[in-house]
Amino acid sequence: MKKYKNPPQSQWSTLTQRPTQSFAEIEETVKSIFKEIQTKGDTAVAKYTSLFDGIKLENFLVTENEIKEAEKQVLTEIKDAIALAKSTIYKFHSAQKTSKIEVETTKGVFCWQEKRPIQKVGLYIPGGTAPLFSTVLMLAIPAQIAGCDEIILCSPPDKNGKVNPAILYAANLCGVTKIYKVGGIQAIAALTFGTETIPKVYKIFGPGNQFVTVAKQVATQFGTAIDMPAGPSELLIYADNSAIPAFVASDLLSQAEHGTDSQVILVSNSQKLIDEVEKEIENQIQVLSRKEIAQKAIDNSKLIFIEKENDALDFINEYAPEHFIICSKNEVYFINGIQNAGSVFIGNFTPESAGDYASGTNHTLPTNGFSKNYSGVNLDSFSKAITFQKISEQGLKNIGNAIEIMADAEGLQAHKNAVTLRLNALKNE
Amino acid sequence: MKKYKNPPQSQWSTLTQRPTQSFAEIEETVKSIFKEIQTKGDTAVAKYTSLFDGIKLENFLVTENEIKEAEKQVLTEIKDAIALAKSTIYKFHSAQKTSKIEVETTKGVFCWQEKRPIQKVGLYIPGGTAPLFSTVLMLAIPAQIAGCDEIILCSPPDKNGKVNPAILYAANLCGVTKIYKVGGIQAIAALTFGTETIPKVYKIFGPGNQFVTVAKQVATQFGTAIDMPAGPSELLIYADNSAIPAFVASDLLSQAEHGTDSQVILVSNSQKLIDEVEKEIENQIQVLSRKEIAQKAIDNSKLIFIEKENDALDFINEYAPEHFIICSKNEVYFINGIQNAGSVFIGNFTPESAGDYASGTNHTLPTNGFSKNYSGVNLDSFSKAITFQKISEQGLKNIGNAIEIMADAEGLQAHKNAVTLRLNALKNE
Repeated sequence: MKKYKNPPQSQWSTLTQRPTQSFAEIEETVKSIFKEIQTKGDTAVAKYTSLFDGIKLENFLVTENEIKEAEKQVLTEIKDAIALAKSTIYKFHSAQKTSKIEVETTKGVFCWQEKRPIQKVGLYIPGGTAPLFSTVLMLAIPAQIAGCDEIILCSPPDKNGKVNPAILYAANLCGVTKIYKVGGIQAIAALTFGTETIPKVYKIFGPGNQFVTVAKQVATQFGTAIDMPAGPSELLIYADNSAIPAFVASDLLSQAEHGTDSQVILVSNSQKLIDEVEKEIENQIQVLSRKEIAQKAIDNSKLIFIEKENDALDFINEYAPEHFIICSKNEVYFINGIQNAGSVFIGNFTPESAGDYASGTNHTLPTNGFSKNYSGVNLDSFSKAITFQKISEQGLKNIGNAIEIMADAEGLQAHKNAVTLRLNALKNE
Repeated sequence: MKKYKNPPQSQWSTLTQRPTQSFAEIEETVKSIFKEIQTKGDTAVAKYTSLFDGIKLENFLVTENEIKEAEKQVLTEIKDAIALAKSTIYKFHSAQKTSKIEVETTKGVFCWQEKRPIQKVGLYIPGGTAPLFSTVLMLAIPAQIAGCDEIILCSPPDKNGKVNPAILYAANLCGVTKIYKVGGIQAIAALTFGTETIPKVYKIFGPGNQFVTVAKQVATQFGTAIDMPAGPSELLIYADNSAIPAFVASDLLSQAEHGTDSQVILVSNSQKLIDEVEKEIENQIQVLSRKEIAQKAIDNSKLIFIEKENDALDFINEYAPEHFIICSKNEVYFINGIQNAGSVFIGNFTPESAGDYASGTNHTLPTNGFSKNYSGVNLDSFSKAITFQKISEQGLKNIGNAIEIMADAEGLQAHKNAVTLRLNALKNE
C-alpha cells in the first residue's frame, strides 16, 4: 500500500491519475472482425465463436427448452436472492419515471417534452468463471420499465455451447426478448450491424474485457450508441475515526478482488484509522479465494491522510470515483459537497456490495474519472427525450416578429420567410 | 425533387439513408493539431489561429471592454428579440429540473438519485457570415440553469480579431463565464486539454463544420464528453390535405437553405398537396438570398406519397428525423406514434423556425437517424445523475443474505465478506 500525508495540491493530478490504457494494438483486429461480420453475417459470427470460444454452434439463439432447463438448475436460494434484488432494483428505477413536461412558454406557444423508449437495445453479459447475472438485472429491469420493444442479450457460450443458467434465468425473468450465445467482439459487431439471426440494436450496454471495450468504441463509429466508456473498477472511501476499521478493510478488499488493475483509495483525517485498516487488510486478505488478484490491487492502493475535510472533499471531487463510501461523523458535508461520483454509500452498514447486488441502485457506473461528465446507467439511459411544440395563431403573432428579426440577423432568409408568410395570412383574415 | 409513390418497405432502407460522410482523410490533420496543442498550449493555438483565421492574436480572452463595445453595437430590435427568446427558452428548460428521487426500496434501505451539474462545460459557436447567436442562447441558458460552474465559450475571430457582437452580447447575457476568440480544431483541442489561458472542460457542446465535427469525435478519445454526433440538418414533414401548401413549401425551403447537403422530405397521403407544394417551392425559391444552396438541397429532396397513415408513421419512425412537422387532421395519431424524432412541430402555425429561435425548445438536435438513440440538448445534458444509498442495521439484515448468496454465486468472496463481517457484528450486539 502506498501512503501519503497531506499531499500538496500540486501532487493531486498524479494521485488522481488512472493507469493509461492503450488499445491501439487491438483496434485493428476489432475493426477487421467488424468488417467481416458486416459483410458475412452469421457465417463470420460462427467462425469467431469457434475460434475464441472453442465451440461450433449451428444456432446462436437460446431456445425455450434451454431456458426451462436453466430454470431447473438454478438453486432456490439464488432464485430467492434474485427475486429480492429484482424487487429493490425495480422500485428504484420505476421511481425514476418522469412525466410529460408541459409549458406555455408565452401566450399561445405550447411546448412539451416526453421520453420515448429506445426501441432496440442490446445487453452484453460476459461469460467465464464469474457469471454476472447481477448485471442482467441491472440492465434488463430498467430496459423493461422504459418500454424498449426489443431487449437483446448476448453472452458467450462455454465449451459445451451453453450459457450459465443463472444468466438465462435472470434474463427470462426480467423481460429479455431474445438471448444469443455469442460473446466478445463478434457479439458487439453483430448487435451493431445485425445478421441473419441477430437483430441490429440502437444502443449497447454492459461490461466486458478489453476486446469488448474496444468493440463498443468501434460500434459508435457506425452510429450505435453505448452506455458509457469503460475503465477498471474503482472505490474511494472517506473515513474518519467514527468508521470501523474491519468494515473499511472489507470494502477495500471487495473492490480489490475485481482485478489486478482495480483502483482502491482510502482518504482519512485519522492516522490511527489508516494504520488499523492496513492491519485489517493484511488479516482479511489471507482467506480470500481471489487473494492473488486482490493482493496486486492492494499493493497499488493508496492510503491518504488529509487533515482538513474541505481539502479531502476537493481531492475526492478531483478524483471523481466510481464508488464513493462515506463513513464520517460529518457525512452530510460530504453528501452535499460531492460533485463527481458514480454511486455513493453512506455509513458503516452500507458496503459497496449492497449497491452491486441488492440495494436497488444501478451498478453500471462511470469509471476512470468519467463521473465528471457521465451518469451511471439509470432509467433515462433507455429512452430519449423528444420535444414537441404547437403554436396557435395568437402564439405566432406573439413570437413571430422576434423570429423574423433573429433569422434575418443570422442571414437565414427562408427561416424568416416561413414566419412572414404565416403572419401575412393572419393579417389578411 | 424526387418523387415516390407508395414505396414498398423493401425500398425504405434506401429512402431513409443519409449521405455517408467519411472524414478519414481529415482525421490525421485533426489528431496532429491536437497533439501540438496538448504539448505547446497557447503557442500552438496562436499558430493555428493565424493560419486558419488569418489573424495574429496576443490574447484570446474577450475583455470586459469588448463586451461593452458589442453591447453598444447590437441593435435594440435584436436585443428585444433575444430577450423574448431568452424568456421562452428559460421557461421551458427550467421546467425540466428534476427533484431528488427518494425510495426506501425495502425496510431500512434508503436510495436516492440527485442531479449534479457538470462543473466545466465548453460551448462552441461557429463564426463566418451567419453568426449563430441563437445557438449561444440554446446552450448557455440550460448550462446556467443546471448550475455549471464554468461556462466557456469559444468562437473564431474575424480578420480584425473580433467576435460578432451579437454572439458576445448573448453570451454575456446568458451567464457565460469566459469567452475566447478561438475557432475550429484548435478551439476543440484547447477545451479538451486546457492551455495556459483556456480552461479544460468536461463536456463540449455546439455545431461546426466538418473539422469541428471530427475534432469533437477526437476529443472523446481523450475523455471529454460531447453533446452528440453530428450530421447535416434534416426536416421531414407529414402533411395531408388540411395543410397549407405555401406554408409547407416555406418550411421545406427554410431547411434547404442550411446547406447543399440538407435533408428535405415531404410525406403525404394527398397527391394534390404534393403537386401544389412543388409549385410553391418553385415560386418561393426565386427570391431567396441563399437560393443556390437551397436549390441544390431541393434537387435532392424527396416527395413521397404514402396512402395509409400507419405506413407513413412506420416510415417516419424508420427515418428518425431531426425535425418533424405534422400538419394533419389526425395529428394526435402522429404525436402519440412518433418514436424517433428530435423535435416535433404541430399544426399550420408552427414553422420549424419557431423552434430554431423562440418557441422555447432547444434547436441542438440529433441528425442522421440519431434520434433513435440520442436526445436533443436539454437540461439533463448539463448534469449527471448520482445515486446515493444509506442502509440501517435493520436494512442490512433484510438484504444482507441475498447479497451474500449472489456474491458467492458470482465467485466474489470479498464482496460477500463485506456483508458477513457486518452481519456478524450485528449478531454479537
